[in-house]
Amino acid sequence: MNIGILGGGQLARMLAIAGYPLGHRFIVFDPAEDVCAGDLCDHIHAAYDDHDALDRFAEQVDMITLDFENVPVETVRYLKQTRTVFPDDRALEVAQDRLTEKDYLSSLGIGCAPYRAIDDRDQLIEALTEFGYPAILKTRRMGYDGKGQAVIGEASGVDAAWDSLSGQPLILEQLIEFEREVSMIAARSPSGDVACYPLTENRHKNGILMTSFAPALGDDLLEDATRIILRLMDSLDYVGVLTVEFFVCQNKLIANEMAPRVHNSGHWSIDAGLCSQFENHLRAITDWPLGTTEMSGAAAMLNWIGVLPDPSSALSYKNAHWHNYGKKPRPGRKVGHVTLSADTPLGLQAEIAKFMLALSQQLQKSGANAFLNP
Amino acid sequence: MNIGILGGGQLARMLAIAGYPLGHRFIVFDPAEDVCAGDLCDHIHAAYDDHDALDRFAEQVDMITLDFENVPVETVRYLKQTRTVFPDDRALEVAQDRLTEKDYLSSLGIGCAPYRAIDDRDQLIEALTEFGYPAILKTRRMGYDGKGQAVIGEASGVDAAWDSLSGQPLILEQLIEFEREVSMIAARSPSGDVACYPLTENRHKNGILMTSFAPALGDDLLEDATRIILRLMDSLDYVGVLTVEFFVCQNKLIANEMAPRVHNSGHWSIDAGLCSQFENHLRAITDWPLGTTEMSGAAAMLNWIGVLPDPSSALSYKNAHWHNYGKKPRPGRKVGHVTLSADTPLGLQAEIAKFMLALSQQLQKSGANAFLNP
Repeated sequence: MNIGILGGGQLARMLAIAGYPLGHRFIVFDPAEDVCAGDLCDHIHAAYDDHDALDRFAEQVDMITLDFENVPVETVRYLKQTRTVFPDDRALEVAQDRLTEKDYLSSLGIGCAPYRAIDDRDQLIEALTEFGYPAILKTRRMGYDGKGQAVIGEASGVDAAWDSLSGQPLILEQLIEFEREVSMIAARSPSGDVACYPLTENRHKNGILMTSFAPALGDDLLEDATRIILRLMDSLDYVGVLTVEFFVCQNKLIANEMAPRVHNSGHWSIDAGLCSQFENHLRAITDWPLGTTEMSGAAAMLNWIGVLPDPSSALSYKNAHWHNYGKKPRPGRKVGHVTLSADTPLGLQAEIAKFMLALSQQLQKSGANAFLNP
Repeated sequence: MNIGILGGGQLARMLAIAGYPLGHRFIVFDPAEDVCAGDLCDHIHAAYDDHDALDRFAEQVDMITLDFENVPVETVRYLKQTRTVFPDDRALEVAQDRLTEKDYLSSLGIGCAPYRAIDDRDQLIEALTEFGYPAILKTRRMGYDGKGQAVIGEASGVDAAWDSLSGQPLILEQLIEFEREVSMIAARSPSGDVACYPLTENRHKNGILMTSFAPALGDDLLEDATRIILRLMDSLDYVGVLTVEFFVCQNKLIANEMAPRVHNSGHWSIDAGLCSQFENHLRAITDWPLGTTEMSGAAAMLNWIGVLPDPSSALSYKNAHWHNYGKKPRPGRKVGHVTLSADTPLGLQAEIAKFMLALSQQLQKSGANAFLNP
């Protein structure tokens, strides 16, 4: 099948790598000139509102998916006139606006941190009085990797937060104290079959995902997370892979956000899963049987942010799998990841420690100006 | 790194699929217009003696490898003037001519079936008198998948064999009785590091590989095969993945042929190995540390010849991994494979039986004119 992907970043790239063995071909559509999926896919380089280019794209593909949840809803609606698009505009509409998203989750009885739409400074002060400090002010739209948000730790921080973000629709959320962050990734096919991956534990730094561990230790939350994602998927009649990120507070799940796509926290499934999130997304949207979400042992994924270290040291390490996205280095940019695996979650921690030691020795020895981020 | 591949078939395709995550880019050079690696690699479509096209190819890549052992040696010699080519012309020269190959193996003390160069009919009669029947007459060059060979079962079959193959350099080999066929696949880096995969057992039909099982049951031959391939690789100062196919006769290894490339019998390593033959070939030629050749449990690879069955039934099967090469159906053509895995070799046999039953039921149900080949 010829599959079009809106967005040509590393997620599109990994979808294509998973999809070629299934016999699919891929074309990405991305307004950026240089996209890393372009190394192995045709690339239509045009704006998301360029109807001629969208027509050309649609003509060349049998169906369309996306690697980016902020593709304009209008683009998807336009393409839907001639091609199936999974996930569809409804899921995007919900996921693109933090207020719509939280309203939607709440309407399904899925717990979120207290939140309030903020359109002016008075509303901000009022909400802060109600929630107390700390709280987090976010743009309703287009935030990712910690961009478009400001923590307000105390009253003196209100002005700075307001000045940095005002002028666009905002949302204030109570900054809840959580023990850890986990994510649930599941694939749903058009017939309603669902396959849920083990719960993954995620650690962020400056709003960017740094490391993921699967299965999350003490995964007695798996049942709750499964119930929640099933409810959400069924309600949206969702097709493809959906991700929900949660805070764990006193062993209860508080939904943070959803991503209508394959997700960074599921990259371990390429190397440690029997069927990766990428393959399962493709199986779902093409209405093929979903693959198992079982994993062998335990796995950790470490993101490389900004620059990639030299792979030699990592590749000397038996249980390491290297993923270079072929992107130019840039501060804060996700340029690759490495997956480590072991037979047990506890064994995995030892493996990570050994791996990081070997890597830091290499970096010291080479005098490289690289950094270790996990 | 930008890597050029001479030949753009499924082996090039699987090399590229393994190599994109390592950050490499690929260009294939193939005289055929429609090549399946072209789905995900740039393709230079020109003859192997087109020096302008070869120059253009070399300019775009940092180094060159191949997916096909019958690339003209002259092509490799020409490219070697400006780019590193692994494996090099010496290995190709040995592997392209069955007589040179057997002479070379014999010179290293590696046992082969009795053979004799045949340039005219008298030599054939003489050799048959010495070897007895059955024997097998083969073209010295360009034979693959059972093409270019004729079994001579008795004296009355001499004319037919001679008529079908004469006019080109030939070799007669004694058709030895063997218990089974196995192959050894190993990767060697420029520094001489070698990683050997578990021995794989192969079953052929009409000269075409149908199924491979790894590890080969009763792999007490592993030590011998390792010794042989190390001797061969060291002698050729070989870089990359090399394959040697053996007959097992009374629990001894008799070398049949070598392939200076990744090999169909190692495809199981994509799904059941920690580091596939494709990744290890790329690690070897780029002088990165070789990956482990360990496998988890046991695996079988079933080739799809001619046509692919509908994947739904196979994909419903938890431990099946689907590989569609994106090639047009054609009788006798390798168009894909499926890998099955299990915890133990004996468990694997049960899995295969279940898988084949499910698949044959699907084929019967669909009334498809497809066939089961394993």
